[in-house]
Amino acid sequence: MRALITGAGGFVARHLSKHLASHGDSIALCYFSANEFEHNSKSSSCENFLLDVRVWQQTYDIISSYKPDVVYHLAGMAYVPEAEEDFERALSANVLGSFNVAKACSILNRETKLIFISSAEVYGKLNASQLPVVESLPTKPANNYSLTKVMAEQACLRFSSQGVLKVGIVRPFNHTGASQNDRFVVSNFAKQLARIKLKKEAALMHVGNLNAERDFSNVTDIVRGYRMFANFLIENRDRNGEIINLCSGRAISIKSILDRLIVISGVDLNIKEDAARMRAAEVPIFYGSYKKAEELIGWQPEIDIEQTLEEVFEYWLQISK
Amino acid sequence: MRALITGAGGFVARHLSKHLASHGDSIALCYFSANEFEHNSKSSSCENFLLDVRVWQQTYDIISSYKPDVVYHLAGMAYVPEAEEDFERALSANVLGSFNVAKACSILNRETKLIFISSAEVYGKLNASQLPVVESLPTKPANNYSLTKVMAEQACLRFSSQGVLKVGIVRPFNHTGASQNDRFVVSNFAKQLARIKLKKEAALMHVGNLNAERDFSNVTDIVRGYRMFANFLIENRDRNGEIINLCSGRAISIKSILDRLIVISGVDLNIKEDAARMRAAEVPIFYGSYKKAEELIGWQPEIDIEQTLEEVFEYWLQISK
Repeated sequence: MRALITGAGGFVARHLSKHLASHGDSIALCYFSANEFEHNSKSSSCENFLLDVRVWQQTYDIISSYKPDVVYHLAGMAYVPEAEEDFERALSANVLGSFNVAKACSILNRETKLIFISSAEVYGKLNASQLPVVESLPTKPANNYSLTKVMAEQACLRFSSQGVLKVGIVRPFNHTGASQNDRFVVSNFAKQLARIKLKKEAALMHVGNLNAERDFSNVTDIVRGYRMFANFLIENRDRNGEIINLCSGRAISIKSILDRLIVISGVDLNIKEDAARMRAAEVPIFYGSYKKAEELIGWQPEIDIEQTLEEVFEYWLQISK
Repeated sequence: MRALITGAGGFVARHLSKHLASHGDSIALCYFSANEFEHNSKSSSCENFLLDVRVWQQTYDIISSYKPDVVYHLAGMAYVPEAEEDFERALSANVLGSFNVAKACSILNRETKLIFISSAEVYGKLNASQLPVVESLPTKPANNYSLTKVMAEQACLRFSSQGVLKVGIVRPFNHTGASQNDRFVVSNFAKQLARIKLKKEAALMHVGNLNAERDFSNVTDIVRGYRMFANFLIENRDRNGEIINLCSGRAISIKSILDRLIVISGVDLNIKEDAARMRAAEVPIFYGSYKKAEELIGWQPEIDIEQTLEEVFEYWLQISK
């Protein structure tokens, strides 16, 4: 399978390309910045491109020359507070970018499959009676990030509704793993604990709201779902525009994640609450159903939270040395 | 009522401001271009502003200084082929612009009512069994214009879902009247007929696809609905985010419109089919239901197609002299 990944410099893309490579896929990695490109371009098994999906001509040229069977569109602004601060940039990166990728795939006219990575954030603020979240719930974006993700979904569907382009939309819930940016909570905790363990920091942890309960998966499970979805579209040519959640199907509190990470790290410490470190929890509990993914593409999560937390801690321990 | 109209230089805004003035509303007219601004700024009963809604600071400054009770957001790219050619500009004008207007109203924090003018185009290509179109149908934008309208609806709803901003979304079907641009079919026919009648053109008409059947209203009926919707939101403070169609509730063929206009004009002529003049009809028949508008805000169309066509012909006859 010829696969093209946009946003190749990101955390999820690194895991996805490793997964695709393990299945023998040919891979084009499209990096946003020259810096990412330089840093990564040594991987000989992949073709490497510099691509700003906001620029139509670049997007068209690369996609039409590589002729992928599947495009995994991961490029975009991924951090909620950034989109909240600068909607115009989020609109350009997430919506114009997705439009350009979908249009380029559509023009290719060779039944390209486009896996668009949306977000569980599109469901907005739900109350407990609406859990677990299923895909048929109407989207109700409550912040700029999720608003641009809903818009990008529609940009993709606009092309799938009138051509040979086949689109699959994924709404992943929280996921983590090695090399995730420490702006995200699990990485943030694990990094602090690793540095405390290595005596690079005092035994004092800064944390935000610990009460929220969220649905965490291992990034390896998530990217496995992306490829299974692409395969599903290849094998089921009449299916188009399907939307699936990928999630663990259960909620775990941030407090519980912290407690487990502390046990894993084996350090003694004090905890200091610091509201500025994490955004306020808009809903106390949020988790999804992966029933549709299971029925449609045969996906289930395989890695439990314990192993995931160990992997993340181990990653930070290694790179903090 | 303090009303603010964006896109004040446009065809619909001219009719809306006349309607609001006849009800004694105070009106702020926001023009996009200096040209429109200069041309119109003599109307002493209104305040006049130059406003590019793509620019946040301008949008915020004008809305926060005028403090409207109601904002009628009409600004944007209105012509389907233009948006098809330049999505980036349509995204900026229609989506970023609507986001800025909704955000500015939201920040005002004084229960501003925002009437957002979307389009019946958002429903996409429907088959005859789905007619008449009701608001609960899922949107399925099939072109760039309708895609940006769906996105703009969501930008408005994003703010209405979390603040004091009250949003009403209108999806008007085709509407026409005096001073509509001759890129639109009724104006196009009427202009040609007026010029033939005045012997400024040979008695030969250029037409496109005449078979399509569409739902045409008089612009006066449509703008009356906008103000009724604003009043509804003022009187029903618990209602927010409602979406209504405004339409005639019936389809009329383009051929029938042409035949009636020819009778109205009283000219003898030959007809030449010219496919380049109008976009291909994507669906043969398309019309809406105004039942929800009737139940919610008490609106019904009042002006029949005959009178509407007479008005449009009379307009072109006057300005072609």
